[in-house]
Order: sequence, then C-alpha cells, then structure tokens
Amino acid sequence: MSKNEENFVKEITNIEENFAKWYTDIVIKADLADYTDTKGCIAIKPYGYAIWENIQKYTDEKFKASGVKNIYLPVLIPESLLNKEKEHVEGFAPEVAWVTIGGQDELEEKLCIRPTSETMFSNLYSKWVKSWRDLPMVYNQWCNVLRWEKETRPFLRSREFLWQEGHTIHATAEEAEERTQKMLNIYAEVLEELLAIPVIKGKKTDKEKFAGAVDTYTVETLMHDGRALQAGTSHYFGQNFTKPFNIVFQNKEGKEEYAYQTSWGISTRLIGATIMAHGDNRGLKLPPRVAPIQAVIVPIAIKKEGVLDKAQELYQKLNKKYRMECDTRENYTPGYKFNDWEMRGVPVRIELGPRDIENGECVLVRRDTSEKIVVKLDELEEKLDTLLENIQKNMFEECKTNMEKRTSTAHNLDEFVEKINSNQGLIKTMWCGSEECEDKIKELTGAHSRCLPFEKEVIDDKCVCCGKPADKFIIWGRQY
Amino acid sequence: MSKNEENFVKEITNIEENFAKWYTDIVIKADLADYTDTKGCIAIKPYGYAIWENIQKYTDEKFKASGVKNIYLPVLIPESLLNKEKEHVEGFAPEVAWVTIGGQDELEEKLCIRPTSETMFSNLYSKWVKSWRDLPMVYNQWCNVLRWEKETRPFLRSREFLWQEGHTIHATAEEAEERTQKMLNIYAEVLEELLAIPVIKGKKTDKEKFAGAVDTYTVETLMHDGRALQAGTSHYFGQNFTKPFNIVFQNKEGKEEYAYQTSWGISTRLIGATIMAHGDNRGLKLPPRVAPIQAVIVPIAIKKEGVLDKAQELYQKLNKKYRMECDTRENYTPGYKFNDWEMRGVPVRIELGPRDIENGECVLVRRDTSEKIVVKLDELEEKLDTLLENIQKNMFEECKTNMEKRTSTAHNLDEFVEKINSNQGLIKTMWCGSEECEDKIKELTGAHSRCLPFEKEVIDDKCVCCGKPADKFIIWGRQY
Repeated sequence: MSKNEENFVKEITNIEENFAKWYTDIVIKADLADYTDTKGCIAIKPYGYAIWENIQKYTDEKFKASGVKNIYLPVLIPESLLNKEKEHVEGFAPEVAWVTIGGQDELEEKLCIRPTSETMFSNLYSKWVKSWRDLPMVYNQWCNVLRWEKETRPFLRSREFLWQEGHTIHATAEEAEERTQKMLNIYAEVLEELLAIPVIKGKKTDKEKFAGAVDTYTVETLMHDGRALQAGTSHYFGQNFTKPFNIVFQNKEGKEEYAYQTSWGISTRLIGATIMAHGDNRGLKLPPRVAPIQAVIVPIAIKKEGVLDKAQELYQKLNKKYRMECDTRENYTPGYKFNDWEMRGVPVRIELGPRDIENGECVLVRRDTSEKIVVKLDELEEKLDTLLENIQKNMFEECKTNMEKRTSTAHNLDEFVEKINSNQGLIKTMWCGSEECEDKIKELTGAHSRCLPFEKEVIDDKCVCCGKPADKFIIWGRQY
Repeated sequence: MSKNEENFVKEITNIEENFAKWYTDIVIKADLADYTDTKGCIAIKPYGYAIWENIQKYTDEKFKASGVKNIYLPVLIPESLLNKEKEHVEGFAPEVAWVTIGGQDELEEKLCIRPTSETMFSNLYSKWVKSWRDLPMVYNQWCNVLRWEKETRPFLRSREFLWQEGHTIHATAEEAEERTQKMLNIYAEVLEELLAIPVIKGKKTDKEKFAGAVDTYTVETLMHDGRALQAGTSHYFGQNFTKPFNIVFQNKEGKEEYAYQTSWGISTRLIGATIMAHGDNRGLKLPPRVAPIQAVIVPIAIKKEGVLDKAQELYQKLNKKYRMECDTRENYTPGYKFNDWEMRGVPVRIELGPRDIENGECVLVRRDTSEKIVVKLDELEEKLDTLLENIQKNMFEECKTNMEKRTSTAHNLDEFVEKINSNQGLIKTMWCGSEECEDKIKELTGAHSRCLPFEKEVIDDKCVCCGKPADKFIIWGRQY
C-alpha cells in the first residue's frame, strides 16, 4: 500500500469509535453530498442523487400500480391555511421558515415554506370534492420541504429535504385505513427489497404520532450502531382535517358527509439509513438494486497493450444490462482505485489484467464479503447476475442478524437500563399505555417508544415501568 | 346533442374571439391545473402533471445520454451570494421572495427562494473545482423556482414553476460554447419531436439576453394566435461568474485560470406552449408522444351484453403497449364522453358498440382531423401504431404551416406595422444592431426581437428601422 492509499483510508473515522463522525466522513468521502453556505441545507451530489433517483423510480412504479397519481402544489402556504387545524399548527409552526417579502413589497399575510402539505391539500380537496363519485383522490407529490431544525445532519435531519408526500381522501373510514396500510406495505418493500434493510411495522403511540393524525403507522429500522430510525410513516387522519377545512361530499344516499383522509411519506433520509445500516470501515456499502454503479471494471496494468481495449469491450457489453463504470484514470494506481470504489460502496469490482485476459478470465471482488471469485469472461454476464442477487440477499441477512442481536427483552426498568446500555438496540417490553410511563422511560434511558408492532408478542403481563397490568406489546430504542 | 352536452361545449370561450380566455378555460376544463389560495401559484393536477412527467422522462434521457448528471442544491440562497454578480442581481433581485424568519427567529441574513441557481452553483463550483481533471462538471437539477411576477397565467407565467436548470463548468471557452449548442439542440428536439412544435433556433440580442450572460441562445416558437413564445434558453457565461466567485483551476500547463460556464433551462411553461400551439374550439389537442392518454375506448350501449367485457379486453391488450383509458362511467352518455375526451385532447378515440363487436371491428376517431376510420379488431394494434405516428406528424405540419403563414418580411417601419397588425406573427427584417432601433420597434409595434436566427437570410441591405446599412438578419414578434 502506497503512502497515498494509506492516507486515503486513514481519513475515515473508525466506525466503532465514533459512529456519528464516521457517518459524516462517508457522506463527504463517498461524494454523496456537501455542505453549503445555506446553513443546515446540503447539496446532494451526483452520486447521492443517483441513489435518490433509484429510490424514486422503484417507489413511484409501486405507487402508480396501486392507483396513486402525481400532482404538484405550491411550496408556499398562507399562514391562515396552516393555522386551520390546531394540533397540526402547534406541531409545525415553531419550525417553519416564513416569507415576508415578495418582490419589493412587505406581504400582507406571511407565507410559510411547506414543512408538509396537509393544509394545502385539504384546502384544495374542499374545492375538488363534491360527490362520492369524485372519491377517492389518491394523490402524491415529489417535492422539497423545509423544517427549521436546530441541529442538522446530512440526509438524516436537514432543514430542506426531498421527499414524497401522498395525501388521499376517501368516502369511508375503512377505505382510508386500508390505504394507510397499503402505503406502509410499499414502504416496507422499498426498505427490505430495494435497500436491504429489515423493518418492523407498527403503530406509533399517541405521544409519538404525527401532529393532527388519529393514527400514525411506521416502518422502524435499526442502524449499525444500534440506534433506531423511523424510515417511513403513514397517517390516518379520520375527519381531523376534513372538519376544519369543511370537506363535505354527497354520499350515495344523497346526504352530506365529511370525508376521510390519509397522508404518507418517505424522504432522502433513506439515503442516510442506507449508509448507516450497511456501511463499514472501508466506506459505503450499497445494495445492488439501488447502487448507481453495480459493478466497476478496474483494468490492471492499464498501459499494457490490449488491456484498456478489453476493459472497454467488457464495459460496453455489460453496460447494456447493468449500471457499470470502467475506471480508466491514468493518474491513480489500481490499489487507490480499489479503495476508492470500496469507499463508494460499489457492490462488485471486476479486476482485469494482462494475465487474466490471456487466460480468458477476470476476478470479481464482492464489496460485502471481500470474497474474490475467478470467472471465465464468457460466463461473466450470467455470474454477475447471480452474484448481485446474492449480495443483495446477504446484505439484508447481515442487517437482520444485527437487528436480532441488538434486540433485547425487558421486564422491569432496571433490566431495561442495563440492556440498553450494554447492547444498544431495540428493547421489547409490555406497556400499560400511559404517557407517564413513556415519559419516564425516555427520561431514564434516552429511549423513545418506536412502535406497537403489528406482530404482537406476549412477554409478561405487567408494564415494564409501573408494574401495573399491561397487555400492550411495544418496542423502544434510542433514535436518530 | 343533449342539453347537457351543449352546455359542456359552450363553456369554452371561442378561440378566435378571446384567445387568452380560451386558454385559461382549457387549463381548467381539461383538468390540467387549478388556482390556489397562494396568489400567483397554481396546483398542477394529475392530468397536467402527467404531461410534465412525459416531458421530464424524454428530456432527462437525452440529458443523460449527453453526459449530464443530476444533483440537488438548496432552494434558499443567502442574499450575499445572490449579490455577487452585478448584472445578475440587478436582473433578479426585484422579483424574488425573501425568507426573513426561520423557526422563531428573525434571520441575521435574509434568504431568497431561488429564482434560478447560477449563484448557488458557482459558489459550490468554487469549492469543487481545483484542477483541469475535475472538469467539465455537467450538472442539472429538476426543481421548483420562484419569481414574484405581478401578472400571472397558469403554466406561462406562474410565481412558482417547475423546471430543470443545467449549470456546467469547463476548462475552455470552446467546450462551454459547444455545450450551450448541444443543449439548445436537445430543446429543439423536445419541442419538435415530442411536442410537435416547430422552432427557430437563434441568438438573443444583448437587450433580451439573460442577466449575467455573454450570449443567450433560444428556441422560439409561435402560438396559434400569432404570438411568439420563448420555449427554452441556453446561456454562455464565459467567465462572468467564475471571476466574482473566484472559480479557478490549474490547467494542464500548471497555470491557474478562471473556468467557463453555461446554464440552460426549460420549464412547465412547455405545457402552456403545447396548449396554445395545438388547441382548438373543442379543447386541448395533445401530440401522441406526450399525451398521458394516447387512446381512449368509449363503449357504446355499455349495458348491452358483452360490450363492457369486450371493451375491457381491448383495454387490457392495448394498455401493454399504449397509454390507454377505458371510459366505463355509467352516468354519462357516449356523446358527453366524446366531448369530454376531446376537451382533454386525447389523440384517438376508439368507439366500440354491439354492432361493431358483431362485425369484429371498431371505429377510430382522430382528434386532430376528426376523421373516422373503421378498423378490424384483429388489426387494431398495428393500425393504432401507424395512426398515432401520423397524428404526431400531422400536428407538427399544421403547426409549421401556421408559422409559415404568419411569418412576413418587412423592409421599413410602415411595412412592419402594417404586417404585424394585419397578420400577427413573426416579422423578418434586417437590423443595424443598435438598441435604439430595437426599442423604437418595440414601442411602435409591441414586438420584441425574438432572435438572430442561425439560419440566416438576406432580405435587403438596410435596417428596417433606421435605414442605415445592416447585415444582421433578425426576427420579431409580440410575445407571451
């Protein structure tokens, strides 16, 4: 290893020593994003944005197949609209940015940059919905939103971020409830199938639910360091917005009725989740299905006759089927390039040198296991296919193993504290359902309730906190 | 025609009587967009947004094939950044919206919502560009922008709109110039191949160019009423931004040098262009390649046995290849549905009734010519393919004919005034190049210079305005 290469590797903080610093190192070194002069807002660079495009494409196809239609509503929301639903405005008003000057003039009514668009959608639905024949409206927008966070971290908690926000309106509560579940299931697929991150599906407690929702459903994930991350949420609003916004429709019986709403969203936070669920001391590790580059060809002894030509030929062939890169840079050694592409988390490296070409073969190196596999060039396409699928599966399994290892059970507070301190991760307990116990646990352990999982377990019959009879199964964890 | 249907048609203003009113009628009646409580900002509805998605998909593929990479930069730009390039800030500062409050606090420095992102890109390029090896950077973002317009019209001039803005940086002036031309050619393809709107490619005069640009190139189009519309622009900046932003790179000779920049954009304004270039008194008319629904099946006598089944069967089959709709609504007559789908500009209507099914045929009706074609069901797929291509071509040809009919030549001011008043459209003239003449023509005729076309003509040897010797060929028109 040359001095140069050593430096390159040294520049990342060790993942076990300082996970937070390791994370921001990866964001910069893998060229995913950069800081900007707009405080708390990042620039998403090509490599990071390509991950988002892959998430968008996968998700949007599933949305459309489930009947979702995309629309686009204004980024600016008048203060009077934001104020219409009491809980909602209390939740969001403290963290919005306000436009007070437009052109040369002070505005009569200030406008906030959307932190989320329930109020804007509801206001339009009150105009668009007249009869049961108009329902449901299953609309979504891919857009930017802004929340004036005090402490920010690239992708995880940025003042501005990109997301999709679906907002639907229905004639019955049942249909709306069903939609929240359908979208939660799509989010679980995005996480598990595309990003290789296992999830726990469940319902948020009243304390943790969305401002204005009747119920909030969530897909919860666990990061490499044992902290939990809320990866996507789906809210059932009942008539909480349709009443203040007066969204009334004529039902089949000819009677006027308030409609029922939902909303649901995932964001560029998923890029942060992918980094933190899979990365290691060599850098980012991307699941093949979402990786902007699925395999990179690194020619060895690039100046030897025939090497570059053969590498380019392979690239041309494979690029028809896979997202490929061929590293033809002349000012870097192969060793440097290996590190560089590992840092960027490319799932497979294809090494091709003069001797390989002579033998009609090449070497595949897995990013996830470092395994080296010698493959005949004429079998490469087929082998690569299987390998990428194996890597995808293996990454999911590894992540699942980590989650299982880091999940403990607690029957009382002492046990809770001991377990979360010795093995940070998820804690399963029973809970009486009181907010006092929820608050006390948070105060004592730093853990928030994650969710009441759909897959229930019975651990015992008493609340982990107060010891009173309890039949609610709940999961806790320190969070991002 | 039932009373209902008559009303439906009557609700649109006649295109020859009041084109502006006709336009906004179409926007609402074809369900493309709606007004919102945020003044000057529209809601783009599913049908309008689907057009934008088709434009995005087509354009983004061409971008990527030409080496463009997508990124995402903050929507908020600090005042100090916006102020760095003198001409640019003078052009944009009067029409931006300012955020002055973030969360609970008055901001120390106000932030504008991006009206365009030259300053944000330039600031980051000053950090990212070090050596000739880093160049070029050919980046683009799909995003929202905001300009505080006083008079707004849906799609054409909205305070907030969606667009793409490409910003590139290069080691040489030649390479940057080449990029501006490459992108202009892509825009011409989007207009001509996708939207069936013929364009004139050329260079803007100094008066009409972008604030901060050395040269602005444009694709100019003509709408149905003879008004011109600037449909896309591509700017060459030279070192106008790299100097104030100090974007310096080390060239191959090891010397420090300021880099060269470009920017280029198209927006949701293209939806407005499509409406105004093709629409008629029956509503919107969409070119097949961009139409969200390419053909709609309208079953006749829907309650007769077998009709609905056959219609659904056809839909299933055709929907694999085309963007299809099957109108199964029971509460509307076929006549109403015909009008409805014509209003929405669907290129082909497929009528299918009991007798058609008996004869193993159906009737295709072209939206562009109203021609009816009886087609055997087993030849439908193939015939539809040819028909859609023919409609696409015919719409382009019709638009081109309109443009030619509405293009006149003028040798002096009297002739200019007479011709633009008798046949509003484009006026070709010679021009001495002085801004005085440009201003005088605008004042007298209401026409702005459109561009100095790349395809030059020699009309005579004197300026149309001052009569002095002139060798510049220029096109004028009243504009949107």
